[in-house]
Amino acid sequence: MKSDIQIANEAKIQPITDIGSKLGIDSKDLELYGNYKAKVPLNYIDPEKVKKNNLILVSAISPTPAGEGKTTISIGLSQGLNHIGADSSVVLREPSLGPVFGIKGGATGGGMSQVLPMEDINLHFTGDFAAIEKAHNLLAAMIDNAVQHRTLNIDPRTVLWKRVMDMNDRSLRNSIVGLGGRTSGFPRETGFDITAASEIMAILCLAEDFKDLKERIGNIFIGYTFDKKPVYARDLKAHGAMAALLRDAIKPNLVQTLENTPAFIHGGPFANIAQGTNSVIATKMGMSLSDYVVTEAGFGFDLGAEKFFDIKCQSSGLSPKAVVLVATARALKYHGGADLDKVNEPNMEALKAGISNLEKHLENIQAFNVCAVVAINKFATDTDEELEYIKKRTEDRGIKAVVADVWGQGGKGAEDLATEVKAVVDQCENKFKPMYDWEWDIPKKIETVAKNIYGAAAIDYTSRAKADLKKIKELGLDNLPVCIAKTQKSLSDNPKLIGRPKDFVVTVREIELSSGAGFVVPITGKIMRMPGLPKAPSAEKIDVDDDGNISGLF
Amino acid sequence: MKSDIQIANEAKIQPITDIGSKLGIDSKDLELYGNYKAKVPLNYIDPEKVKKNNLILVSAISPTPAGEGKTTISIGLSQGLNHIGADSSVVLREPSLGPVFGIKGGATGGGMSQVLPMEDINLHFTGDFAAIEKAHNLLAAMIDNAVQHRTLNIDPRTVLWKRVMDMNDRSLRNSIVGLGGRTSGFPRETGFDITAASEIMAILCLAEDFKDLKERIGNIFIGYTFDKKPVYARDLKAHGAMAALLRDAIKPNLVQTLENTPAFIHGGPFANIAQGTNSVIATKMGMSLSDYVVTEAGFGFDLGAEKFFDIKCQSSGLSPKAVVLVATARALKYHGGADLDKVNEPNMEALKAGISNLEKHLENIQAFNVCAVVAINKFATDTDEELEYIKKRTEDRGIKAVVADVWGQGGKGAEDLATEVKAVVDQCENKFKPMYDWEWDIPKKIETVAKNIYGAAAIDYTSRAKADLKKIKELGLDNLPVCIAKTQKSLSDNPKLIGRPKDFVVTVREIELSSGAGFVVPITGKIMRMPGLPKAPSAEKIDVDDDGNISGLF
Repeated sequence: MKSDIQIANEAKIQPITDIGSKLGIDSKDLELYGNYKAKVPLNYIDPEKVKKNNLILVSAISPTPAGEGKTTISIGLSQGLNHIGADSSVVLREPSLGPVFGIKGGATGGGMSQVLPMEDINLHFTGDFAAIEKAHNLLAAMIDNAVQHRTLNIDPRTVLWKRVMDMNDRSLRNSIVGLGGRTSGFPRETGFDITAASEIMAILCLAEDFKDLKERIGNIFIGYTFDKKPVYARDLKAHGAMAALLRDAIKPNLVQTLENTPAFIHGGPFANIAQGTNSVIATKMGMSLSDYVVTEAGFGFDLGAEKFFDIKCQSSGLSPKAVVLVATARALKYHGGADLDKVNEPNMEALKAGISNLEKHLENIQAFNVCAVVAINKFATDTDEELEYIKKRTEDRGIKAVVADVWGQGGKGAEDLATEVKAVVDQCENKFKPMYDWEWDIPKKIETVAKNIYGAAAIDYTSRAKADLKKIKELGLDNLPVCIAKTQKSLSDNPKLIGRPKDFVVTVREIELSSGAGFVVPITGKIMRMPGLPKAPSAEKIDVDDDGNISGLF
Repeated sequence: MKSDIQIANEAKIQPITDIGSKLGIDSKDLELYGNYKAKVPLNYIDPEKVKKNNLILVSAISPTPAGEGKTTISIGLSQGLNHIGADSSVVLREPSLGPVFGIKGGATGGGMSQVLPMEDINLHFTGDFAAIEKAHNLLAAMIDNAVQHRTLNIDPRTVLWKRVMDMNDRSLRNSIVGLGGRTSGFPRETGFDITAASEIMAILCLAEDFKDLKERIGNIFIGYTFDKKPVYARDLKAHGAMAALLRDAIKPNLVQTLENTPAFIHGGPFANIAQGTNSVIATKMGMSLSDYVVTEAGFGFDLGAEKFFDIKCQSSGLSPKAVVLVATARALKYHGGADLDKVNEPNMEALKAGISNLEKHLENIQAFNVCAVVAINKFATDTDEELEYIKKRTEDRGIKAVVADVWGQGGKGAEDLATEVKAVVDQCENKFKPMYDWEWDIPKKIETVAKNIYGAAAIDYTSRAKADLKKIKELGLDNLPVCIAKTQKSLSDNPKLIGRPKDFVVTVREIELSSGAGFVVPITGKIMRMPGLPKAPSAEKIDVDDDGNISGLF
C-alpha cells in the first residue's frame, strides 16, 4: 500500500495560477509562494456571492484518538462535488508544525483525498504560523519591557499573556523568566503555549479585514496595573506593529487537492480553547469564488460545530446550508464499549450500544435548525451489516446516511455522498438559529450550551470560576460569546463517559478572557496548550536527501 | 528630506523574473515569493564561474554606534559598478526582525542605495529566520524530551543548547524551564538567544549544500551524559528533521536594488559570536551569475573581515580580489577623542589623532595580502579639508581613497569609487593568505589573531577558559578555527580604548564550542546574545492601514 507522501509525490500537480484562473483569479493578482502556493488578495471577497453561494460544514461524532477522517472526507467531498459537475472548493485549517514532529504526522488528508503540496503545507507553508508567533511574542516582549521600564504601572503578577512556539515542547509549559539581575527583567512565572493556541490565531481567524484585525488585537486583555486598572494591548501601542507583522498572514492561501480542485487553507486555531475553524476570510473567499464550499470544524459537533455556529457564524454572518456529520463504525463501536484496539473487529452489540452518540449529535444539528447528511467514512474492516445498521438508524430520523470511500477512491468514492449533499443543500430551506443570544449573561450562555448540546443535568462553578465571572462583568465584557473548553472524547466534560452520557454535572473550573478574539473561555477539565513529544518522536525519521527531497514525513 | 521608506515606495521596482533573466536565470527555475522576491535553486552555482569572477569585500574601520554605512556603500558600489558597465550583484545579510522593533530600524541600506522590497526584507522576508528558529528549537525540544524520557542518559546540567527567538526580549535571557511536576520536564536553567545568534544560522551560512548542512547539524555538541560522554545532535537523530526544516531556507534569496540591479540577501549570523557574513551559498551564487560581486562583513575589519578570511574563505575556497574599507570623517574624529554628539562638527585635531584607527585596519588588510581601496562615506557635515586629509593619509600608504555619496546619489555617487575598485580588482595579483593554519592549536591561533590584527601585547586566559581549552582538546576539536568574540567598538577587547590601542592584554574569559558550524568561540568581554527593547520601542510607531500598507518602519 502506498503511503500518503508517495501518493502525493506521484500526483500531477498543476501550477497554482491554473487553479486560480479556474476560479477567475487573474494570475497577476496571485501572490505566489513558489509554483504551487499563493495568497489571494482580500478584494476578491464578494459579499453578494458570499450571501448566494452554499456553505457545507463537515463535523463528526465524538472522535476516537485516531480521528474519524473529517479532513479526508472534506477534501474527498469537495472533489466528489466537482465530479458531479458542482463547482466546489474546500476550505481547511493549516496544520500545526509541532505535532508533525511528534506522533500525529500531517493534517492534509490521506490516501486519494489530500491537499498538495503536502510537505510544504505541513512544514512552514506560507509563513502564517511564524507571523502569528512573532506578533504574539512581540506583545509579550513589549509587556515585559513596560514592566522593566515601569512605563505603564503594570503589575507583573497579573500578566496572563504567555509566549508561544509552534513546537511540542513540554519543558516550556511552565517557566520563570526575567532572571539574571536588574538589566534582564523582573522575574515572574509564565510559560509557552503552542502557536495554534495563541489568541492571535483566534483573532486572525475571526477578523474580517485589516481594520477589524487591528481593533481586535488592540482589545487583547493583558492584566492589571498596580492600582487594578485593566491594561489592553492598545495601551502598549502594540497593535499597529502586531498587525503589520500579519500583513501577509491575513490573506488566505490557495492550493489544490490531488484532483486539482481548489483548496483554501488558512488559520488553525485550537479547537478546545478557541473556535477551531479556518478563517472567516478564507471561508468568505471560497464562497466568493465557488458555488459549493466544504469546510470543517474541529473535533466533534458538540465542540467545533457549536462554536462554528455560535461564534464564527454569529460574528461573520455566515450560514451553512448543511452539516455533514462524519461517523465511522469503529468509533461507534468504541462508544458502545469496545476496546480501542478491537474496534476493527465486527461487533454489532457494541455498535448498537454506541449508536446513541451519533443520535445525540444528530439531535444537536437539528437543534441548530440545519439540514444534515451523515457520511460514513468507510474502512476496509467494516462489515456490510454494520454499515447498514448505521444507515438505518440515521434514516429512522429522516436523515440520509451515505457510505464514502474517499481514502481509497478520492472524489469517485464520494460521488454518492456529493449527490446527496448537493440535493440537501439545494432543497434545504432551513435557516440556522444560534443556541444563544450574545447579550445573555455568561452563566446563562454556558448553561444553554451544556444542557442542550452536551446533555448536562447541571453546571457547577468553582470559586475561581465565580471570581472570573465577577471580573468579566466588571470589565463590561459579559456580552461576549462562550467558547467552552471541554474534552472532545465525550459529550460530557469527563473523557471516560463514552456513548451518550446522561445526568452529569459540568464543572467550570475557570473562565479565561479572550477579549481580542471576542469570547470568553469557560474551562471544564484539563486543557493542554503545549503538547510534548513521545519517547521516539517522528522527527527521528524525517530526513532530506542531497537534492532536498524530504522523506519520513508520513 | 524623504525617508528611506518613502524613497523605496516611489522606486520603480521590476518583477523579480526580469532581474533573474538579466542574470540568465530561467523564470521557471525561480521559486517566487510574491512578485519581487525569489529563491534561486542551488544548481545555478557554477564552480568555474566562482573561480573566475571577482569578489569584493566591504568592511570598515572600528565603527561608532551609528555604524559607518557599510551596507549602504555595498549597495551603492554595486549600483555604481553597473553604472560604469561592469556586471555586478551585491550579496548581503538578512536583517534581524528583533531590532526592527527596537531602536535600529531596518538593515536594507539607505537613501538612494537600498534593496527592495524593504518592508518585506525587514519583516518576515522569505521565512529563512523562522525556519532557522524552528530547526534550532526542534533540537532543544528533542534534548529536553530525551531528558524527560531518559533515553540517552543526558545530564541536563551539562546541556548548553538554548532556545532562540527573533525578538528583542531581555526577559528571556535567563530562565528556568521544566517546572510544573513530572509530566512537564526536569527543571533546569537555560534561556533564549536572538535567532541571528543561533549556531544553526552560522551553519546555514557555511554549508555548501544539503549534505554538508546535515553533516554540520549532526556535529552540534549538546552536552554530556551522566558518565561524561559527549552528546551530539546526531545522537538524538535530530539532524534529518532539522535539515528538512531548512530545505527552502538554504536557497539564496534574489531581490533588487533601487536601481534594479541584482541583490542576493541570505543568512544573517551575528558578527560577534559567529562569522557575521551572508551565506557561502549566496556568495557563490552571486559569483556564478555576475562578474563583480560586492559583499560585506559585519562590524570592523578586525572582527568581520578577519573571520571572513580565516573562517569563511578558508572553509569555502573563496578568495576576494579587493577589500573596500569604509571610513567616515565623523568616526575618525570619534577615534581621535571627539565626543560622539560632536562628531558632526569640524575638528581637524581629532581627525589627525583618530586616523591611526584607519591605518591599523589598512595594515591588517595588507597582512592578509589583499588589495585595498578606502571608501569615504560622505556626510553633509564633512569639510573638504577633512576629506582631503583622510585621502592623503591613505594614499601615503599606496592605497587609493575615494569619496562616495551613495546615500544621496546612489550608483551615480559611487561611480568614481566603482572605477577605482574595478581597476584594483582587474590589476590586483595578490592572493590572500590566511592569518593562521587551522591545524595549529587553539591558543596559537588566538594569539596570532590578537597580536597581529588587534595589536595586543599578550593574551590572558581565565581558569574557565583553560578548562574549556582542555575540554575542546579532549573532544578532538582542537583543529577548528577561532571565531573570536570581541567588542566592535575598539581594536582591543575594551570598548573604551578608541583609536589604535597599544600594549593591551586580551582576556579570554571562556571558549564556546560551535562544533556544528565548525569553529570555537573564544569570548573576550561581555557578549549580548539577546537584546532588549528601549523605553519607547519603535514598534509603537509601526502601523498598517486598512489597505495593508505598512508605515513607521523607518
